[in-house]
Amino acid sequence: MDQQQARAWLATAVAEARAGLAEGGIPIGAALYGPDGTLLGRGHNLRVQNDDPSMHAETAAFQAAGRQRTYRGTTMVTTLSPCWYCSGLVRQFGIPRVVIGEAATFHGGHDWLAEHGVEIVLLDAPECVEMMRAFVKDNPALWNEDIGE
Amino acid sequence: MDQQQARAWLATAVAEARAGLAEGGIPIGAALYGPDGTLLGRGHNLRVQNDDPSMHAETAAFQAAGRQRTYRGTTMVTTLSPCWYCSGLVRQFGIPRVVIGEAATFHGGHDWLAEHGVEIVLLDAPECVEMMRAFVKDNPALWNEDIGE
Repeated sequence: MDQQQARAWLATAVAEARAGLAEGGIPIGAALYGPDGTLLGRGHNLRVQNDDPSMHAETAAFQAAGRQRTYRGTTMVTTLSPCWYCSGLVRQFGIPRVVIGEAATFHGGHDWLAEHGVEIVLLDAPECVEMMRAFVKDNPALWNEDIGE
Repeated sequence: MDQQQARAWLATAVAEARAGLAEGGIPIGAALYGPDGTLLGRGHNLRVQNDDPSMHAETAAFQAAGRQRTYRGTTMVTTLSPCWYCSGLVRQFGIPRVVIGEAATFHGGHDWLAEHGVEIVLLDAPECVEMMRAFVKDNPALWNEDIGE
């Protein structure tokens, strides 16, 4: 896909991550875009804010998009490589493309998604790496809790 | 694990599935049990009831259990073979065992979980097969929506 488009969409996910950080939460954000570029849903990790371990950024964006008859042509945009939980979401619902801010601080299931035909656009965005690196350094226990380690 | 124990735990998931069906929803239920047999959380699919595609039975039970520092020794019990989304949840959070009511009407990611060291207890429970088979027959579009097909 067009890199400029990918970066513009990533900005939505980054804004979500920053909103989560401002709330005292884990700074991971995501957005689900439709085939025509319509924003279907956006969200961020809510483990701390809602005491809800099920709301990762991607699942929050997926929930916010509401019921969709099909995910054909959609793109999941996330600030961080999706964990197995969120990678499973992408695979199950046939989301054909994932734009990822960075996979340097955490390497989730995106190689597995690529093996199963999902287009992966890995941006190596410095703003994502910096935000996540600082958070993990300051909150190692919280981060480990969020990824089940 | 002990089959009698597995069947007793499955009854909780079946009760959840039946509650979902009575609400007009998709009849899949789940429960998360702790290492000592404590019920940590239970839930059922909420796509129809809450217009929420993110709440599969397993994610609802996981959410209901709240934040846990570790999932060591826990068991996810579900009336139906977990889809990729829910299988990803199990793998990411290190839930070491999954009790499954049936995999005849839907074969999800439980073989993949077994390959990655998760203990799978497949019960072939007739009450689960019958409930799911009747539901899918009467509501094929809804069922396909729930599994992204």
